[in-house]
Amino acid sequence: MSIRVAYQGERGAFSERAARRLAGDDIETVPCHSFEEMFESVGNDDADCCVAPIENSLAGSIHRNYDLLLESNLTIAGETNLRIVHNLIAPPDVELAQIRRVYSHPVALAQCTQFLRTNRTMAPEAVHDTAGAVRMVMDRGRNDEAAIASDESAGIYGARILARGIEDNAQNYTRFLLLKDPARALKVGDTGRWKTSLVFRVANKPGSLFRALGAFAIFEIDLSKIESRPVEGRPWEYAFYLDLVGRSDEAPISRALANLSEMAEMVKVLGTYPSRW
Amino acid sequence: MSIRVAYQGERGAFSERAARRLAGDDIETVPCHSFEEMFESVGNDDADCCVAPIENSLAGSIHRNYDLLLESNLTIAGETNLRIVHNLIAPPDVELAQIRRVYSHPVALAQCTQFLRTNRTMAPEAVHDTAGAVRMVMDRGRNDEAAIASDESAGIYGARILARGIEDNAQNYTRFLLLKDPARALKVGDTGRWKTSLVFRVANKPGSLFRALGAFAIFEIDLSKIESRPVEGRPWEYAFYLDLVGRSDEAPISRALANLSEMAEMVKVLGTYPSRW
Repeated sequence: MSIRVAYQGERGAFSERAARRLAGDDIETVPCHSFEEMFESVGNDDADCCVAPIENSLAGSIHRNYDLLLESNLTIAGETNLRIVHNLIAPPDVELAQIRRVYSHPVALAQCTQFLRTNRTMAPEAVHDTAGAVRMVMDRGRNDEAAIASDESAGIYGARILARGIEDNAQNYTRFLLLKDPARALKVGDTGRWKTSLVFRVANKPGSLFRALGAFAIFEIDLSKIESRPVEGRPWEYAFYLDLVGRSDEAPISRALANLSEMAEMVKVLGTYPSRW
Repeated sequence: MSIRVAYQGERGAFSERAARRLAGDDIETVPCHSFEEMFESVGNDDADCCVAPIENSLAGSIHRNYDLLLESNLTIAGETNLRIVHNLIAPPDVELAQIRRVYSHPVALAQCTQFLRTNRTMAPEAVHDTAGAVRMVMDRGRNDEAAIASDESAGIYGARILARGIEDNAQNYTRFLLLKDPARALKVGDTGRWKTSLVFRVANKPGSLFRALGAFAIFEIDLSKIESRPVEGRPWEYAFYLDLVGRSDEAPISRALANLSEMAEMVKVLGTYPSRW
């Protein structure tokens, strides 16, 4: 039986490509309308795991998924980074000059600002999902509407690519996490490069974050990301999300985590997992 | 001549209330459609300063404004925190039971999830601005549409408040910054509590962030916020935004900044300013 992988968006979404890269081509995809639904589908056993975008190299973190991950009991089982290429996509018989309206996810529209500025006849309109925009444009079949999405989604819905690579900045990558129930076995290939993600909270006083980071600095652990998030119900208090290079069950990270636990009000390891480019 | 203060949104926006608290009641307001337009209006001398929401205690940072602040040459001249209270607002003759559609900013809609779940006949619809939603609902004058916005906006547009305080969590505050050209004199009351905001970048190697924070820890400087943001065009490299309690032109912060400059690839002080609750 193939693994059921939930993701947000429709067939052809960037998340689907990440799902195949992380869990293999022999998967059953479970498209979801929202990130909440995606997390619920794993909780309800409608899916075995899910693939969540967590960060874009231009737009920054996708905080809703950080919050949902912390609320859930899921653990990170793998990560991958996808180069994001945006394309202008329309029904097969439509020409570029006819387009008056362009649908896509707000982040995708924002990442194609220069293209939309030089094509001022095209009015951008935000929808929930890039691949969903292609499906919608195809369903409507108008000759003045297009979508911004992946080339795969054009193939899936039988649409035509009018312009390729229309993103402002080619250094556009999204990092996706594979999330699963800790009790569930799931085969993820060992890439040889492991990362560990955790969240912690320290007392709100001078130097407390510095001392907490010292737990990692004394062992020269490579900190690949730090992010602060407000703690709900405690205005202007923060939880810190860290990504470390290494495995949580091996020294020095295991030692550093033990030291951090002595200092922090809360520590939660979100996962230790192989990283795949 | 009164000071011209730009903000994003329409008359009655939360930003307008923040503008009056920061710059006084005798101001000329310059409503803008977008954050970009707001920053441009100060650059073009269409406004003397602007008021930007930078962080919400539930939703987190408003990253677009961090990015625009870094790109601009504006400096922070003051800050204030507003308690955010959301209300359901409709034309005067409309009753609660008639409402089928509710317009507001996506963040405001998300912050009223419980109210919208218990009132499932009301379909939420995202628009750019809370006060703008009230104006739109009043312009349309339908008996089945409402907006979620501040009580002030109801007063300004002659609308009726159908339900007050419908936000899920009362610990809902937004922090606003007053931004101005460094060369422009602007009188901002000294509240006795000063803060300093800065951004820095360090080499991407183990311990570099720890050492940078050490510059502040050795002087026991209170770090009220830390936030990482991706550096455009350099995937998975980060700049760090810090808020410190104290003035940048007085020790120990002046000393710490000098030490940080020795270690960091880049340091930019975004402002030193009085904080007002």
